[in-house]
Amino acid sequence: MLDRNMALFTDFYELSMMQGYFKSDIKNKKVVFEVFYRKNPFGNSFTIFAGLDQVIEYISNIRFIKEELDYIKRLGSFDADFIDYLRDFKFNGNIFSMREGSIALPSEPIMVLEGNILELLILEPGILNIINHQTLIATKTNRIIRAADSDPVVEFGLRRAHGPDAALYGSRAAIIGGARATSNVLAGYKFDIPVFGTHAHSWIMSFNNELEAFRSYASVFPDNCILLVDTFDSINSGIPNAIKVFKEMKELGKLKNFGIRLDSGDLAYISKMARYKLDEAGFYEASICASNDLDEFLIKELKSQNACISIWGVGTNLITAKDCPSLGGVYKLVAQTDGISDNYKPCIKISDNIEKITTPGIKKVYRIYDKYTDKIIADYVSLREENIKNNESLTIFDPLAIWKKTNIEADSYIIREMLQPVFIRGISVYNKISVTQIAEYSNREQDTLLDEHKRLINPQPIDVSLSKKLWGLKLGMTNKDVRISIDI
Amino acid sequence: MLDRNMALFTDFYELSMMQGYFKSDIKNKKVVFEVFYRKNPFGNSFTIFAGLDQVIEYISNIRFIKEELDYIKRLGSFDADFIDYLRDFKFNGNIFSMREGSIALPSEPIMVLEGNILELLILEPGILNIINHQTLIATKTNRIIRAADSDPVVEFGLRRAHGPDAALYGSRAAIIGGARATSNVLAGYKFDIPVFGTHAHSWIMSFNNELEAFRSYASVFPDNCILLVDTFDSINSGIPNAIKVFKEMKELGKLKNFGIRLDSGDLAYISKMARYKLDEAGFYEASICASNDLDEFLIKELKSQNACISIWGVGTNLITAKDCPSLGGVYKLVAQTDGISDNYKPCIKISDNIEKITTPGIKKVYRIYDKYTDKIIADYVSLREENIKNNESLTIFDPLAIWKKTNIEADSYIIREMLQPVFIRGISVYNKISVTQIAEYSNREQDTLLDEHKRLINPQPIDVSLSKKLWGLKLGMTNKDVRISIDI
Repeated sequence: MLDRNMALFTDFYELSMMQGYFKSDIKNKKVVFEVFYRKNPFGNSFTIFAGLDQVIEYISNIRFIKEELDYIKRLGSFDADFIDYLRDFKFNGNIFSMREGSIALPSEPIMVLEGNILELLILEPGILNIINHQTLIATKTNRIIRAADSDPVVEFGLRRAHGPDAALYGSRAAIIGGARATSNVLAGYKFDIPVFGTHAHSWIMSFNNELEAFRSYASVFPDNCILLVDTFDSINSGIPNAIKVFKEMKELGKLKNFGIRLDSGDLAYISKMARYKLDEAGFYEASICASNDLDEFLIKELKSQNACISIWGVGTNLITAKDCPSLGGVYKLVAQTDGISDNYKPCIKISDNIEKITTPGIKKVYRIYDKYTDKIIADYVSLREENIKNNESLTIFDPLAIWKKTNIEADSYIIREMLQPVFIRGISVYNKISVTQIAEYSNREQDTLLDEHKRLINPQPIDVSLSKKLWGLKLGMTNKDVRISIDI
Repeated sequence: MLDRNMALFTDFYELSMMQGYFKSDIKNKKVVFEVFYRKNPFGNSFTIFAGLDQVIEYISNIRFIKEELDYIKRLGSFDADFIDYLRDFKFNGNIFSMREGSIALPSEPIMVLEGNILELLILEPGILNIINHQTLIATKTNRIIRAADSDPVVEFGLRRAHGPDAALYGSRAAIIGGARATSNVLAGYKFDIPVFGTHAHSWIMSFNNELEAFRSYASVFPDNCILLVDTFDSINSGIPNAIKVFKEMKELGKLKNFGIRLDSGDLAYISKMARYKLDEAGFYEASICASNDLDEFLIKELKSQNACISIWGVGTNLITAKDCPSLGGVYKLVAQTDGISDNYKPCIKISDNIEKITTPGIKKVYRIYDKYTDKIIADYVSLREENIKNNESLTIFDPLAIWKKTNIEADSYIIREMLQPVFIRGISVYNKISVTQIAEYSNREQDTLLDEHKRLINPQPIDVSLSKKLWGLKLGMTNKDVRISIDI
């Protein structure tokens, strides 16, 4: 998908810093960067990690072509030896990542990258761009899915997305978040995901009258006949005309999947009227699809008012994540060598803002599940060399409020390591699976959450604890001169 | 740019309707669609139209390849004769459009498309996707530019944009909206627009100390040396260290473009302290660049507090149009033939919501300027066959409040036709110009607005009037049975 050339898809300052290192005596420095975000969007208690597949493609395909190197030269800031380095550029590092569709939590590493400092710099903006976008949309969609309960939700956002990629990868992320289908044919083609659609108001307007338009549509699509009833007047014209056409089709023995779509007016009231009239005519199996600026809150309200809607089409609010259109995923340096030896030392960025102080060191993420309920108890972030076993008791605490402690007894929990290798020395070891399979996995992940975590408003947060050793390292480094490093 | 294959970049229902028409007896129907939006985003009084170049490329490149046709076949809803039609698909219609960078107003046609009904359906989602995105970002950027007054604004949003295209075309739109440069190297390469950047916190952290990091950067980039001073402590460490390095460079005679960047803390306070210390050291020409979740309101507040910031780096809020991340551009049928003759009849969509009633007929947009001030008085939308001359007086009225009338005297105004041909019978007649040229034009367009129209909060709306003839047509069609058409 990201097979087009993306080598220049980076910020100018990455190229500047790369040349800076290239010309310094620490050009062979090895570093570890971490991808994480600080705050859940939408007041949610988690995110659904998405975009890894495109990150893998992006990294695998980075090669500078002549025209791009000529362009960099024309910029006037870069020397011939550095441009020669770029000519041979290929990613040679290691990457560990959560699996797509996984539940991810604030402040824990979603992805850990290890390599030469130059090669890790160029990747920062592209990786963040892809992950921030898809994770945001998957998470937003999942909220809409929860509001719709077991009703299918279809993604209709193509025309309001931020350009073609936002539509294409937004559809992909929506499926990962739980949408049943998309209107976007390109997404269907690229990702082998279901596509769905009916017809527009212009279809009705281009015939002599609504009835003729419905008949004509039904004759071409007898197997999937969803009629848009609100062009003129849903209750007095659209619904009666649709029922007339369904009767005609039934007589011809051609009625299979059929129903109506509402795109304006009071969806609760009109859907109830429509259901009554359809049922009265014996069309109990007719679906009622609704669209028109829906989001999770409106869907929940409509359902609480017993709206008779069986398929929810959601566009703008889903595809733009309207109430919080950005995820603040960041890419931070957590360990480095001195450029000569291969010994990593952890590093930290201090800030006046407590939440912005980074956690130093190369890490693992353990997810702790209750052995009896299979629900998540907490995430437990440790240093890479620590090995947590579930035959020992575990202390969970909030790193910003360490007096809030929970003790988890030995053998009462199950642990799972969340970060798995996807690149080893520049070679992809990632097992690509289909978007449908990712969506199935994502759906199973939802079963590991308590209802309290899934509440749309003010849900219970899920704890992310540090291991004692990691906490000690961070504490030591914040209390001392910030430039001091501790051997780990 | 959009040279990748985009034939399937459409909604499923467009393909369904296309096949529906293909199999009907109105498959040769000619239609006219119009692109417009109903409401200005951000409480602005106008938008800046952007995205035409990509629309032209998208339309010019639509060809279905074998794999795509095979996919459509596999969907099971489409017949072989329709797929044969798609195999030969090529746009053959006419398109009239505003020029990119133009001021556009609510409810007036930005683009008018004329052609066979099948070919115009497939284009709807792609055109709206491109225009809605770029127009939104250009307009948002322009608000930020106005807040920054004459200070340069640089677009820094790559990592928070909704996927690669949102970053790439978002950068393009930002330049059209008035941004001076972008951090996005790919955008610089593709659109020949200025790129800008400094270095990150990780640069500082990877050296033994801040001073060493600054010296190292200055030695590689003596000509463009902007030092990020907030990694540890801006006032007590970053700024003094930067000044030390500037002094060293000055002694070596290497000081050209230089300055500092602030990315956290109180930007008003720290920038004033920085300015004082830089001036004290004689570095009056040092620039102070600031970033950190800026938007038009924060910039305006900081300026009103005399913050000493000379370059504004704006990321998330610009590239996601955070406070209103979608523009509701629509594509509506306004006229059609019966499929046999070539006579167009206007058509209308009725709605309970007055603003959602479309204005029927094939139209022109005249912009009316005051002859003496060159400022916009109003836009005047007429039927295509009307010819407005400025030697007659003109009545301007609000179509939703027709008692609010303004009379413009003959010879006191200048008129300009806004819609120009870009495709004639499928051939592009569009004169491609550079993004920089579009930005220059867009900048000149801003001079045609009164300050009252440019206010960030509650600006004076700019009137969009209908001609009396067009108003009469609309009134006639809303008062009668909606299926009645009037010959125009």
